[in-house]
Amino acid sequence: MTEELELVFEKLTFNFETRKFAELRILLLDMEPFDIATYMEENLDDKEQIIFFRLLPKELASDVFVELNSDMQENLIKAFTDRELKAVVDDMFLDDTVDIIEEMPANVVKRILKNSDPENRKQINELLEYPEDSAGSIMTPEFISLSPSMTVEAAFDRIRATGVNKETIYTCYVTNRKKILIGVVTVKSLLLADKKQLIEDIMDTAVVTVETVEDKEQVALKFSNYDYIALPVVDKEGCLVGIVTVDDAVDVIQEEATEDIQKMAAILPNEKPYLQQSVWTIWRNRIPWLLLLMISATFTGLILNTYENTLSGISTMLIACVPMLMDTGGNAGGQASVTVIRALALGDLEFKDIFRVLWKEIRAAILLAVTLAVACFAKLMLIDNLLFGFTDYTPIRSLVVSLAMFATVIMAKIVGCVLPLIAKKIKLDPAVVASPFITTIVDALSLLLFCGISIAILQA
Amino acid sequence: MTEELELVFEKLTFNFETRKFAELRILLLDMEPFDIATYMEENLDDKEQIIFFRLLPKELASDVFVELNSDMQENLIKAFTDRELKAVVDDMFLDDTVDIIEEMPANVVKRILKNSDPENRKQINELLEYPEDSAGSIMTPEFISLSPSMTVEAAFDRIRATGVNKETIYTCYVTNRKKILIGVVTVKSLLLADKKQLIEDIMDTAVVTVETVEDKEQVALKFSNYDYIALPVVDKEGCLVGIVTVDDAVDVIQEEATEDIQKMAAILPNEKPYLQQSVWTIWRNRIPWLLLLMISATFTGLILNTYENTLSGISTMLIACVPMLMDTGGNAGGQASVTVIRALALGDLEFKDIFRVLWKEIRAAILLAVTLAVACFAKLMLIDNLLFGFTDYTPIRSLVVSLAMFATVIMAKIVGCVLPLIAKKIKLDPAVVASPFITTIVDALSLLLFCGISIAILQA
Repeated sequence: MTEELELVFEKLTFNFETRKFAELRILLLDMEPFDIATYMEENLDDKEQIIFFRLLPKELASDVFVELNSDMQENLIKAFTDRELKAVVDDMFLDDTVDIIEEMPANVVKRILKNSDPENRKQINELLEYPEDSAGSIMTPEFISLSPSMTVEAAFDRIRATGVNKETIYTCYVTNRKKILIGVVTVKSLLLADKKQLIEDIMDTAVVTVETVEDKEQVALKFSNYDYIALPVVDKEGCLVGIVTVDDAVDVIQEEATEDIQKMAAILPNEKPYLQQSVWTIWRNRIPWLLLLMISATFTGLILNTYENTLSGISTMLIACVPMLMDTGGNAGGQASVTVIRALALGDLEFKDIFRVLWKEIRAAILLAVTLAVACFAKLMLIDNLLFGFTDYTPIRSLVVSLAMFATVIMAKIVGCVLPLIAKKIKLDPAVVASPFITTIVDALSLLLFCGISIAILQA
Repeated sequence: MTEELELVFEKLTFNFETRKFAELRILLLDMEPFDIATYMEENLDDKEQIIFFRLLPKELASDVFVELNSDMQENLIKAFTDRELKAVVDDMFLDDTVDIIEEMPANVVKRILKNSDPENRKQINELLEYPEDSAGSIMTPEFISLSPSMTVEAAFDRIRATGVNKETIYTCYVTNRKKILIGVVTVKSLLLADKKQLIEDIMDTAVVTVETVEDKEQVALKFSNYDYIALPVVDKEGCLVGIVTVDDAVDVIQEEATEDIQKMAAILPNEKPYLQQSVWTIWRNRIPWLLLLMISATFTGLILNTYENTLSGISTMLIACVPMLMDTGGNAGGQASVTVIRALALGDLEFKDIFRVLWKEIRAAILLAVTLAVACFAKLMLIDNLLFGFTDYTPIRSLVVSLAMFATVIMAKIVGCVLPLIAKKIKLDPAVVASPFITTIVDALSLLLFCGISIAILQA
């Protein structure tokens, strides 16, 4: 948080506590809804939130409400009179209303719907039926539509008459009588055109659209590739049913990145900000993978149980090198898998690129493996043998460890780059399937490689 | 890639190879610049790219050029005549020109600057002086400025006269004679206002601004919090020097997420798409952390060397449990560190929250540790002892391993949540400092805990 904002927060607290509500309102008028919501979340208890919210200037109330977390929204709705609730709901965009409804318990949802206009209620119910994570679930039906035979002047009249409540007016959508989307026209092109020109003569007919059932991650990717501020959403018949605006796409991009990061770290994804997650939620999101990965360590345990006496019999030095081999394998595999997972998420890679990826990774792996094997040999001979005086770090044993290092890195890179691509191909989530498993698989394989190489060379 | 787009690509190839250039141009006119660039990257060699680019409809040329990767841009510029280069450069927004220049070798930069208008050249040189990753480096000076005493009608005239080459016309910036930013007015409010009203009467004076030297990550965060389509950039005196548009913010958000993911996976960040990175680049970005982490495994090696004989003397079963303990510790620590790192990046956490974070993590850690310890005991007794018949997995030894598991998870969670916060406080990058190191620190500490607990209980 900036110092400037901290100062404003202090003033808010002072004016709120000393009941200087007129000064408070003047301060609030100059603030962003997001910052007001942040202030309320960080500084006010349940009761104070209700008093504070009622002090908000009317034109800010619903904008602030949308930015609050769902616990606070629920708390406020329960305190609202029907009239207050209606005022807030009427002023929100429909996609925001739908987002809020999805987080509320059934009785609260009923109250929200009861206090919506019949027309809005119908649209809300339609929006609620789209699958979670689909374009339909994040779109709003509040857009400006024009007909192709309108003049530019008539289009401006339409915008002036209906624009106040639309989420964006800067891209207008041209539809025919069957509501099929036939073109788009921007306010910029309207402003630069002659008043008498017809919309059909200036509209752009090459329209990028998204389908209602399209994954919202794909929608976000279209925004980041094509640089639009809104995209039209069409149903299977090509009828325009809504738009997605870039601010929603930005939220999706942030959420998807957070989700992928969580999955890569073996956490079940959760949309709530960290400090709002209860301890039980944190436990529930983290325990499944920890348990599964712990149980799967049975494999490494089995391998070590089988070979430990043999290895220790040769030299306990070999056992001491196991963590280094396993960690380096895990790191090397993780680098490859994370790179591929992110490239898949950004649309830079597809399954059909698997051989290009393999060819690149294998060459990189050979370079990395040679470097690491040489460094490993040097470390064992110089640091462990010379510096620390472990005389059982002989050249031949160090060579065996270095060879195992070489093999481990190559194996880890191949496993790391191939697994996410296969996961994608069989429609599993690459981030979930590949990342937490990589360590376990690479651990077991690197141990097997190490034991095999040790026995082959040292027991020969 | 969608099937539809694949079909278009096939048609492009057919028309290009059979030299049906008229049909080719018709196809291209309906395509997005990003898709054309993708086609050129995936399907054409250096020579074909030049021929293909010259076939592009004029109005698309610079839009496509901006979307190409820097190797292709360099290839094309070298083939361009001065006139061709000037046409492309004149048609680009200045922030895009600057992005391209930053990737080009000196002689190419000279040619670009030589073929720019003197006015543009001056502005490009100014933009090039802003520090990398600052708001100044991603802004464009091409915005619409209005004066407060203008009427709405005059404002529209100004927009019509100068809007064609501005990156956005939908937010206009009101400045006084000293070029100090005093307000913003959107085209929406202009359209809804009376023609005779004065700008100063309808402008919004509570303006969210960014400073030229502000980190671009902060700028992107403002976009995702405040939902604007453009933000004004001011210098230290409050003078308006440029704007950042939301499409650039979206790119920054994607890049920053990719960078953080790379850093968490112990890779030096790289902006190039994966398939464009050379094998040497991949090696250079991955080898430093692999080497450092391998060398740092010397600690775990030392600990194992010191205690191994003791542990093996008690039971080789203890050694076989080391990977399970170390992996679970690494996973548990990684979950905490990654959660905190992401929350820091999203602005949900600050250093001052350290005690709230610790309190939350310690409670979650106790729940997780109890669950894992119990499960660990059950696994050792049921799977390893009963199922696999390892009789040296006795209850007391299994209890020791479970206790070590409990201690390891608590320790890993504390290390995992505290390290990134400390890194942030001392102005280091949390993602770099915390993530790759966590495994090494947690490995060493969990081994020490395990050896200590084993010796205390089993040798007593």
